[in-house]
Amino acid sequence: MSEFVFDRIALIGFGLIGSSIARAARAKGVVREISGTARSEKTRARVRELGIADKVAETPAQAVEGAELVIVCVPVGASGAIAREIAPHLAPGAIVTDVGSVKSSVIADMEPHIPDGCFLVPGHPIAGTEQSGPDAGFAELFTNRWCILTPGEKASPEAVEKLTRFWQALGSDVEIMEAGHHDLVLAITSHIPHLIAYNIVGTVADLEADTRSEVIKYSASGFRDFTRIAASDPAMWRDVFLANKDAVLEMLGRFSEDLSGLQRAIRRGDSETLEELFTRTRDVRRKVIDAGQETAEPDFGRIRAISPETD
Amino acid sequence: MSEFVFDRIALIGFGLIGSSIARAARAKGVVREISGTARSEKTRARVRELGIADKVAETPAQAVEGAELVIVCVPVGASGAIAREIAPHLAPGAIVTDVGSVKSSVIADMEPHIPDGCFLVPGHPIAGTEQSGPDAGFAELFTNRWCILTPGEKASPEAVEKLTRFWQALGSDVEIMEAGHHDLVLAITSHIPHLIAYNIVGTVADLEADTRSEVIKYSASGFRDFTRIAASDPAMWRDVFLANKDAVLEMLGRFSEDLSGLQRAIRRGDSETLEELFTRTRDVRRKVIDAGQETAEPDFGRIRAISPETD
Repeated sequence: MSEFVFDRIALIGFGLIGSSIARAARAKGVVREISGTARSEKTRARVRELGIADKVAETPAQAVEGAELVIVCVPVGASGAIAREIAPHLAPGAIVTDVGSVKSSVIADMEPHIPDGCFLVPGHPIAGTEQSGPDAGFAELFTNRWCILTPGEKASPEAVEKLTRFWQALGSDVEIMEAGHHDLVLAITSHIPHLIAYNIVGTVADLEADTRSEVIKYSASGFRDFTRIAASDPAMWRDVFLANKDAVLEMLGRFSEDLSGLQRAIRRGDSETLEELFTRTRDVRRKVIDAGQETAEPDFGRIRAISPETD
Repeated sequence: MSEFVFDRIALIGFGLIGSSIARAARAKGVVREISGTARSEKTRARVRELGIADKVAETPAQAVEGAELVIVCVPVGASGAIAREIAPHLAPGAIVTDVGSVKSSVIADMEPHIPDGCFLVPGHPIAGTEQSGPDAGFAELFTNRWCILTPGEKASPEAVEKLTRFWQALGSDVEIMEAGHHDLVLAITSHIPHLIAYNIVGTVADLEADTRSEVIKYSASGFRDFTRIAASDPAMWRDVFLANKDAVLEMLGRFSEDLSGLQRAIRRGDSETLEELFTRTRDVRRKVIDAGQETAEPDFGRIRAISPETD
């Protein structure tokens, strides 16, 4: 099928997500033309070198001209300012969306700026790696991953339907959700795991130098897995925690209560409580694998990847 | 080279580690004969079916007869009872070791039972997956992984040297360390990461059913990584936390203090503190990769592994 879902789209921001959208939209023939911009001249130059956009503009205002779909791919704290900046330049009937990990704050920040006759359909592709920047993107990032849309008052059924087709054409499975509910689910699914990973890596960074280097040396025993998550983009995550403060603090409260319970069980030598929990958590792992969100392959082939010389 | 490091070894326990030692020792020609036993008849029958031992005995006492090296591969809480049981049956000059994740408690529990003329050299191969049981083992598990030996009063330089050669022949890099220091380093490297992973997976398991199923559905955004660690063997980890109580509680205290600081920063909207930490933790990730403990490949090829239909 050679019909484009959109004729022209504009990307504001070319990090991991923005540059992956550009690559995927082109590779899969989803749009005719991609224009875009990035805040830094360095990134704009790199996007030109990579050739992943048809037109690289100097400003968001120039980038959105004539675009049927505008995708804002910046840290969530910057989405309001971008909306204000592009609003007067949007084509009539344009759909505006974003890719941020928090949705209530994005609606609150962007919606007031969207002019009548244009539509806002916030979105969140649940996809990513710990790497960032225009070189980190790749066309298959969204394949078989979820994309959640959280339409608010400035959405229309037609805009939601068309954006759904766009994400499906990129390979995603699309779900519609209320913004506040999205933020609560993602707080425990994504935000708290990142916060905890950042925290323990920070605890290690504060150890005396000799102990710290030993922790790194023996990190394959568990710590390693946390360092991957804690290598994610700092500005993006700073914004996530501030924008989703209420849900994050609520879920962090539950986590801390549970941890205090575990601490007490260890102090008292309560082996039954420990074994009961550790058995129960195995079941959750099975459900994650059953849900197709993970492979059952142990350790993701790291052993082979790290030891190329083994046969 | 066709010289065996040991003529006959005995394995007590055929879980992931024990069965991997058996496979590796045979595949690499490290020993002439492997005898062994497991607590359950089911495991003993499976080891016979797999053919990974030359002789499967009914009891530890029978298994250790004539063995130059005895490797105790059971949860650390059981190592004292095993030492008492095998002590009268050890061959003169036999070396006894273990593979437990805690070393001070193993020395305290096993050393009193080791007869004069035999040697105890506790060990800890830093290798594993989240799977367990005799079928989960494989010969390459120890390749390029660290193995830490923590000799105590019942060790001899010759016994340490010979056990070092054994682990090197299995593919490991061997380090000698004081048992208490090992327990402190592993508390933060391995035990606290596992405790936190178990805890957050437990927090999710306690959510209302509909939210829980959504968390599982969208788990690729972070939570997924924790479920892998939290699928590790329950009995093994119960024993680890109880046996390394002091070091675990000390490191858990530091972790919790740091987490309170992050909570406060989020509540106050202190973006500088958050970004500063998130930037600092990236550096630790780099050091882990530089230390050869991890690949830089994003997401360990999971995207490909989960989506076999993509090209």
